[in-house]
Amino acid sequence: MTDPRPIGVFDSGVGGLTVLREILRRTPDESTIYLGDNARAPYGVRPDEEVRAFSTQSIDALVERDVKAVVVACNTSTAIALGDLRRRYDLPILGVIRPGATSAALATRNRRVGVIGTPATIRSHAYFSAIKDENPAVEVYEHATPTFVPMVEAGLLSGLEVEASVREALAPLLGERDASGEFVFPLPPSAKVDTLLLGCTHYPLLRAAIGSVAGEGIAIVDSAAATASALAELLSINDIEAPRADPGGTDGPAVAAAATGGANHVQLTTGDVDAFRAIAGRMFGEAFPDVASIELEATVSGA
Amino acid sequence: MTDPRPIGVFDSGVGGLTVLREILRRTPDESTIYLGDNARAPYGVRPDEEVRAFSTQSIDALVERDVKAVVVACNTSTAIALGDLRRRYDLPILGVIRPGATSAALATRNRRVGVIGTPATIRSHAYFSAIKDENPAVEVYEHATPTFVPMVEAGLLSGLEVEASVREALAPLLGERDASGEFVFPLPPSAKVDTLLLGCTHYPLLRAAIGSVAGEGIAIVDSAAATASALAELLSINDIEAPRADPGGTDGPAVAAAATGGANHVQLTTGDVDAFRAIAGRMFGEAFPDVASIELEATVSGA
Repeated sequence: MTDPRPIGVFDSGVGGLTVLREILRRTPDESTIYLGDNARAPYGVRPDEEVRAFSTQSIDALVERDVKAVVVACNTSTAIALGDLRRRYDLPILGVIRPGATSAALATRNRRVGVIGTPATIRSHAYFSAIKDENPAVEVYEHATPTFVPMVEAGLLSGLEVEASVREALAPLLGERDASGEFVFPLPPSAKVDTLLLGCTHYPLLRAAIGSVAGEGIAIVDSAAATASALAELLSINDIEAPRADPGGTDGPAVAAAATGGANHVQLTTGDVDAFRAIAGRMFGEAFPDVASIELEATVSGA
Repeated sequence: MTDPRPIGVFDSGVGGLTVLREILRRTPDESTIYLGDNARAPYGVRPDEEVRAFSTQSIDALVERDVKAVVVACNTSTAIALGDLRRRYDLPILGVIRPGATSAALATRNRRVGVIGTPATIRSHAYFSAIKDENPAVEVYEHATPTFVPMVEAGLLSGLEVEASVREALAPLLGERDASGEFVFPLPPSAKVDTLLLGCTHYPLLRAAIGSVAGEGIAIVDSAAATASALAELLSINDIEAPRADPGGTDGPAVAAAATGGANHVQLTTGDVDAFRAIAGRMFGEAFPDVASIELEATVSGA
């Protein structure tokens, strides 16, 4: 069986668009509805009850639009509300934390993983717990990088200045710096992290800069890519993939290239549509043109 | 919601017990029914139609026993029958190929992955395709190691002799050997595989020997572990995990240690029960005591 209904992607703001981008790349036949609760972002500063209520309202809105699965592309909502959401709704719900954590636990060779994220995500220790669940032998070093989200939303994604900021932010995690600004590693290589997990949906846009600062010996694991991969596998396992837009009737790589023919994509925001378009444009260029407004219930829907 | 029904694990023989072992380790509260079609193993030498028919009969038998999900822990059946099976049954069905392939694609740093398996699996190029699906930039080197399954089923799992056989078998993949028997790598490190995928369910039992031959620079990725991890995530996403056997009422690591209290496990074989017990005993010691006989329909059930 196939299922042409769209996939719902929910985030408090625009960061989840990196997850959406990976979903479009991996499963180009799938339609999507993105919901950014920009009017109430960021969630990281809000009490748990509010995060749960806002997440429920957002997913109610996606369920009303007949989505077949939901990706919670928001680290705060995943950390706080995912269990509740799965109990409440009778459809598959993915978070962004477990797929990234699993990938990092698999990618490390020396069993030392660094995790970077917003202060709220790092304080929640959600990645720490998820990596330990996957492999208790992995040592996890968490580090908040509060300057990255403002940098990304301002469109500062590459260049020497960005690299300098990234180097500054990662120094406590990756090593000491000497007078010339180069990293100095007093520890033997086996004592350094060999894998760095990007625990914030904005960070894949800084991937090049982060990779350049971290150097070749460190694998960069990206929650957005890992989540899109887990979604593709879930659609396949549950046999709810969209029908293939397959002009040639073959099953080969041409399919991926030919796709998005039958797929529809819309981005909804609770905030200002022009502001959403402006930020998304600075981050992704022209990738997400179809933005519309949505209003969510001010009160929580009945449990 | 929780779902106390068992997980069905299907293999043509005993190799899938490595997947079962990982499932017991990661999701200790889950009950399981293992079905080994030993009377008709191995599947690798059979025509596709037979593999599909036998797989369908086996999963019919598991569905009759009210399983909530099925793991096809057989590389041949996964490569040939998985798509058909997913269309036929209205429950989640996991194969062993995609999880292993995804893990390998994520684990490699130099984008060179070696895959070892039985001749039938290697001929199918199923891992090659699945790794390329995950990341087309990864180069995949496939290599059949036909001596490994007989070695494992004879209980030869470690020791100098086993390592010598493993070294012999992996030489074409890992490098040349000089007169003293040591590997010589004429290629620079960047041109060697840095990740080795065990593409056969028997091979995790040789993991120590394979790791010792491959050396520290090569990550060993294990389809059995990756599949059990994907199953755990699937149960969680679909909200069909078993109720927790949680004496202390806490949510911590103690749960895993205390578990298997409420879980039941049975192994069924279409072959001789004593022979199954003997092989499983040589491979796993006393881990799988509860073996019973099962007869499958000689004809394919109606489509």
